[in-house]
Amino acid sequence: MNTQRTAPIGISKAASQRWQENYKRITQGSGRLFLMAGDQKVEHLNDDFVGGQVAVDDADPEHLFRIASQAPVGCFATQLGLVAQYGVDYPEIPYLLKLNSKTHLLPGAEHDPRSRQWQSMAQVAQFIEYAGLPVVGVGYTLYPGSEFEAEMLTEAAQLIHDAHHLGLLAVIWAYPRGKAVGKHEQDPHLIAGAAGLVACLGADFVKVNPPLNEQGIPEARLLGEAVAAAGRTQVVCAGGSEVKPEDFLRRLDEQLREGHSAGCATGRNVHQRSQEEAIALCRAIHSLVVEDRGLEHALTLLQEK
Amino acid sequence: MNTQRTAPIGISKAASQRWQENYKRITQGSGRLFLMAGDQKVEHLNDDFVGGQVAVDDADPEHLFRIASQAPVGCFATQLGLVAQYGVDYPEIPYLLKLNSKTHLLPGAEHDPRSRQWQSMAQVAQFIEYAGLPVVGVGYTLYPGSEFEAEMLTEAAQLIHDAHHLGLLAVIWAYPRGKAVGKHEQDPHLIAGAAGLVACLGADFVKVNPPLNEQGIPEARLLGEAVAAAGRTQVVCAGGSEVKPEDFLRRLDEQLREGHSAGCATGRNVHQRSQEEAIALCRAIHSLVVEDRGLEHALTLLQEK
Amino acid sequence: MNTQRTAPIGISKAASQRWQENYKRITQGSGRLFLMAGDQKVEHLNDDFVGGQVAVDDADPEHLFRIASQAPVGCFATQLGLVAQYGVDYPEIPYLLKLNSKTHLLPGAEHDPRSRQWQSMAQVAQFIEYAGLPVVGVGYTLYPGSEFEAEMLTEAAQLIHDAHHLGLLAVIWAYPRGKAVGKHEQDPHLIAGAAGLVACLGADFVKVNPPLNEQGIPEARLLGEAVAAAGRTQVVCAGGSEVKPEDFLRRLDEQLREGHSAGCATGRNVHQRSQEEAIALCRAIHSLVVEDRGLEHALTLLQEK
Amino acid sequence: MNTQRTAPIGISKAASQRWQENYKRITQGSGRLFLMAGDQKVEHLNDDFVGGQVAVDDADPEHLFRIASQAPVGCFATQLGLVAQYGVDYPEIPYLLKLNSKTHLLPGAEHDPRSRQWQSMAQVAQFIEYAGLPVVGVGYTLYPGSEFEAEMLTEAAQLIHDAHHLGLLAVIWAYPRGKAVGKHEQDPHLIAGAAGLVACLGADFVKVNPPLNEQGIPEARLLGEAVAAAGRTQVVCAGGSEVKPEDFLRRLDEQLREGHSAGCATGRNVHQRSQEEAIALCRAIHSLVVEDRGLEHALTLLQEK
Amino acid sequence: MNTQRTAPIGISKAASQRWQENYKRITQGSGRLFLMAGDQKVEHLNDDFVGGQVAVDDADPEHLFRIASQAPVGCFATQLGLVAQYGVDYPEIPYLLKLNSKTHLLPGAEHDPRSRQWQSMAQVAQFIEYAGLPVVGVGYTLYPGSEFEAEMLTEAAQLIHDAHHLGLLAVIWAYPRGKAVGKHEQDPHLIAGAAGLVACLGADFVKVNPPLNEQGIPEARLLGEAVAAAGRTQVVCAGGSEVKPEDFLRRLDEQLREGHSAGCATGRNVHQRSQEEAIALCRAIHSLVVEDRGLEHALTLLQEK
Repeated sequence: MNTQRTAPIGISKAASQRWQENYKRITQGSGRLFLMAGDQKVEHLNDDFVGGQVAVDDADPEHLFRIASQAPVGCFATQLGLVAQYGVDYPEIPYLLKLNSKTHLLPGAEHDPRSRQWQSMAQVAQFIEYAGLPVVGVGYTLYPGSEFEAEMLTEAAQLIHDAHHLGLLAVIWAYPRGKAVGKHEQDPHLIAGAAGLVACLGADFVKVNPPLNEQGIPEARLLGEAVAAAGRTQVVCAGGSEVKPEDFLRRLDEQLREGHSAGCATGRNVHQRSQEEAIALCRAIHSLVVEDRGLEHALTLLQEK
Repeated sequence: MNTQRTAPIGISKAASQRWQENYKRITQGSGRLFLMAGDQKVEHLNDDFVGGQVAVDDADPEHLFRIASQAPVGCFATQLGLVAQYGVDYPEIPYLLKLNSKTHLLPGAEHDPRSRQWQSMAQVAQFIEYAGLPVVGVGYTLYPGSEFEAEMLTEAAQLIHDAHHLGLLAVIWAYPRGKAVGKHEQDPHLIAGAAGLVACLGADFVKVNPPLNEQGIPEARLLGEAVAAAGRTQVVCAGGSEVKPEDFLRRLDEQLREGHSAGCATGRNVHQRSQEEAIALCRAIHSLVVEDRGLEHALTLLQEK
Repeated sequence: MNTQRTAPIGISKAASQRWQENYKRITQGSGRLFLMAGDQKVEHLNDDFVGGQVAVDDADPEHLFRIASQAPVGCFATQLGLVAQYGVDYPEIPYLLKLNSKTHLLPGAEHDPRSRQWQSMAQVAQFIEYAGLPVVGVGYTLYPGSEFEAEMLTEAAQLIHDAHHLGLLAVIWAYPRGKAVGKHEQDPHLIAGAAGLVACLGADFVKVNPPLNEQGIPEARLLGEAVAAAGRTQVVCAGGSEVKPEDFLRRLDEQLREGHSAGCATGRNVHQRSQEEAIALCRAIHSLVVEDRGLEHALTLLQEK
Repeated sequence: MNTQRTAPIGISKAASQRWQENYKRITQGSGRLFLMAGDQKVEHLNDDFVGGQVAVDDADPEHLFRIASQAPVGCFATQLGLVAQYGVDYPEIPYLLKLNSKTHLLPGAEHDPRSRQWQSMAQVAQFIEYAGLPVVGVGYTLYPGSEFEAEMLTEAAQLIHDAHHLGLLAVIWAYPRGKAVGKHEQDPHLIAGAAGLVACLGADFVKVNPPLNEQGIPEARLLGEAVAAAGRTQVVCAGGSEVKPEDFLRRLDEQLREGHSAGCATGRNVHQRSQEEAIALCRAIHSLVVEDRGLEHALTLLQEK
Repeated sequence: MNTQRTAPIGISKAASQRWQENYKRITQGSGRLFLMAGDQKVEHLNDDFVGGQVAVDDADPEHLFRIASQAPVGCFATQLGLVAQYGVDYPEIPYLLKLNSKTHLLPGAEHDPRSRQWQSMAQVAQFIEYAGLPVVGVGYTLYPGSEFEAEMLTEAAQLIHDAHHLGLLAVIWAYPRGKAVGKHEQDPHLIAGAAGLVACLGADFVKVNPPLNEQGIPEARLLGEAVAAAGRTQVVCAGGSEVKPEDFLRRLDEQLREGHSAGCATGRNVHQRSQEEAIALCRAIHSLVVEDRGLEHALTLLQEK
């Protein structure tokens, strides 16, 4: 793995240096990213946090912070408002502020997705200045193909620019969606297109859904087109809904080895478990993504609760 | 009851201290909130103020100020423009400025709700600076599920951020509504989702409608999911339309004890009564919410007019 | 009549003092308002100024200024652009700058009314600074119930705030209108709702259409609900289309005595007459509204041309 | 003819003086305006510049500048971007910067006209400061009756205000248009309404289409209502599509004498001719409008090529 | 060829001098432009970069930079975000920052094209200041005839103004498109209209699609109307989808000689080839456009790989 990376240009030396430090921190010195995603309380409201197989711990938002503070994550991505309330008790988590979010209440068959930036970058900078937390970056969800695409592209481009000027990393969640996209959301070629688009926006990482096709090609290999298209923007895959830990790790291992992805961004697969199980899974993910010690070793860590 | 609470981080020491003072004042040192809601002159126009059982006193907006000045409320929430006119004669009421409002004239079957912030936060700060009133916070109504959700989420997020920077509390009225929500406005799981969403916005209190279901589960217990989902954002229930004082208090007592809510936000149940009756009811609410002296004591206060 | 009134709070001492002076001037020391409305050249284009019974004088916009300069009006409300052209020759008229206007070309059955602020308040302040005219206030038309209500509510709230900070009076024309309102524009309860809404915006005066009902209750008495709902915001009635002077005065007298309105805002009934007749009518209105000398005296003034 | 005119008030002495100089220049000391309109390359794309009877010279945009520099026009109205490219070679033309324009590609039956200001007034001021050209004013097209009317009214009002503060003249092209206007675009009463509306915006000149009716009343006389309604805002007529020079002059003469218009704004009738013919026609127009030497003299000038 | 050109006026001397230097660089001293277009990763997502005849090299965005750095292009146009990531390794390419882009996901039959500026000009200026790269200009795509035309015209006008004030060249991609344009996108007269429109915006170069008609007139000759209409704004043709190198050069030669175009803007025809072939083609294009050495010589260069 290449653990070094050049900062984007067009920013001051101080910002560049800060970006380098944040890059090292977010990738834990490995050049790969283990992002713990915790923005679902808006995106899916309370659906992901209660009922079914979901651990009882997950009903309380603090569960997310407890995991993130004890597990070896590269960053914990959630909304600024939540960090403003819990950060005082979890001052060592590397935070990634997710700057836009929407609910899933409007049905996609009638409404193309529209998600706007919540806080201005001036407000983000002000927050960071006073909070004294290790905020390493910002995140933004983009829906290429939505009829509101133009609005989101501009917000994303400006946010990435300003993040870099503050020395922050920029991570884009890129999900093609909307009536024009229909059922092709996970088409490998479309996902590659979205990854390439995000490269043109100048983001440091792009989070995509794992590609799917109907011809039996292994999923991880399909990821290759996206990784190539993204160029220097590093690609990580979303984890999706909860699966068995062993299956999760096997899939991730394939994405890393065959798809050449640069890590993972996982939410539900972590926080829907009890604290103990969540932390064990995070250690296994860290071993795979950051330490690069292989699937077998990762699987053994699952047992060490 | 926990009467202490940490201020949100990401603000200056001076703002944090001012927030603490305002928190103490709004909760009357109890950690729980008795909010008197007086924004219905816009939301319901004159429907709530004349006719039927409504006391004659209520036809005059000053009725609201008379009650709020003599009753032990934690704060009185109304529009800045009304405070600008009456505040000079009621300088000791702790005010919460309700910053957005809409009328109910547009039928929901055709128009999703859209409510915009009236005054900018710069104007609010200017008002506070010159008015010399104990303004303790700001309020904003959010309609998750409306097709204008994105616009309101951004306004709410920015308003909460700026309020905290001014040392003010932020209270969000969170009412899922719109064609996509339909008749599920009071679904317990949806209300919990809205409460969790407001936690991600970073508000200090969220006002929700009491949840309802059709399976005979006691209403107050249904509130538990929302209280959990909201985490450190404290949940208070809206009072709804006028009911008998005794019934109102019983319901509130259950919300506090079984639902673990952090108080109440009531409007019509207070101001639609005569001044004397309204104040008596407020004293009973205060006893229940703030003093935590139990239902029986509260009921006796109703008699002490 | 109460001739004193407290300035809105939340503004500087200098602004408060200036507001007091303007209040005295606009009410001519009486606490009641005689507003001469001259914004119809946009609202009704040229329909009000030529043809039928309209005096030939009215074809020329200067007619408005000639009347306003010679008649005892409390203020003359018209667009800034017209004042910029004629003010140099009429430097003693107390002007109220009407800041939004729309034409009546878009049919209401298809288009809800939308009227935006023309000049920014910074431009208004700049105009006042250089013009050297006695500008006493600003005006804005609000259409509650229009699908553009949210936009207009915000403009109105901000304009009122800024006007007060400049020491200017704020007058809101409040006309419920739009497909959702339909034929109920003059429903007494709805007009009262609009008046109460404007109180929450913090305006000093609200101009409403006279309420109508179908049950034979005298119109003036119907106004009482609005006057109560508006609280400290004073209510004046629009004059409507031209009627006989005697009828106009009788109706106004009833509004003042039975409806407890705080004056009148009349346009067509004044400017559609010849200069001589218009001035005579204005003197009669002034006698009724400002001098409070009763209907009989006012009627005699009609003869003194 | 009245050759003097008071500057609008509400601006600084320096701005007022500059306005006076520009007024004198634009009216060539006559109080009447000969505006050469050259904004059709956007409004009509290339339709007006090639084919049919159009002179070959007109295919090149420089044709407009060649005419304007050699003919006695009061001002030449075109887009800033064109002036930025040709102005260096034509430094003595009095320019009027046309600040909004749209194409005719969207069919009116489906799309109401929407035309937005291109450059901000800050950019215009910056351009003027550096360009060193005699820029005498700015222009803007307004479509009363369009569903985008509100947006354009605000842009126009602010632009006029800011123009006057820079000492520039403001000319409004006022064309009632849109589905609500339909075929009544040239109704005399509607045109008068538009002219009166522009007076309320505070513009110095309003350019209207010549009114038409079906009852055989001479067109020029129909213009009288608009001239009256516009008050101190001076009315000039658009020239329309190309007609025979003699007919053009006769019509203009009638507009001036019978309609009391204050000049003309002509585009195609000038630039669709060869340079020689265009200049000859301009000299005739100048004689009629500015020198007021009568139709006969103007007709003789047509021969002096 | 005329190798000199006057800078636009209305800017400072320093900006004018910088513009001159950039003009010389972008035209390589020839007065003609060879623009290498590399914005398709957004416009066409990954469709242009993998599959079919596309060289394997093209899957990686760095392919674009490798070509641009070794081939004699006048400028390489791509998104700022991509330059921010690769520019550090390719510091000598003359860059043109393409400031707006959209995907092709929304079907044109339902959605008129809407493409918004991504970074503000303040952000662009900040980028240039810190990046230390030879950024020579900015680009923007305009869709005349789209229902979003008004929005794009304003963005384009302001961007061109600000670019000139920074001493940068401004290139507009002008593609009539939308439901109102339908199948007439390549109508010669419409393309000429678009070119003339861009002249009015003040751009330095306009990139148009080659005109087509059905009457057998040679394509290059059809371009003449656009070149004339554009006046001092220089016209270059888009290259379109990949064709045989020899055919590409022949067509370009005709455009230059018969259509009097000022160069070419080509993307897919360059980057879809292997690095070696792409560079060979670029040298041939350079010979034709910049060195003006004729078609025969250009064709021989194709062989010198």
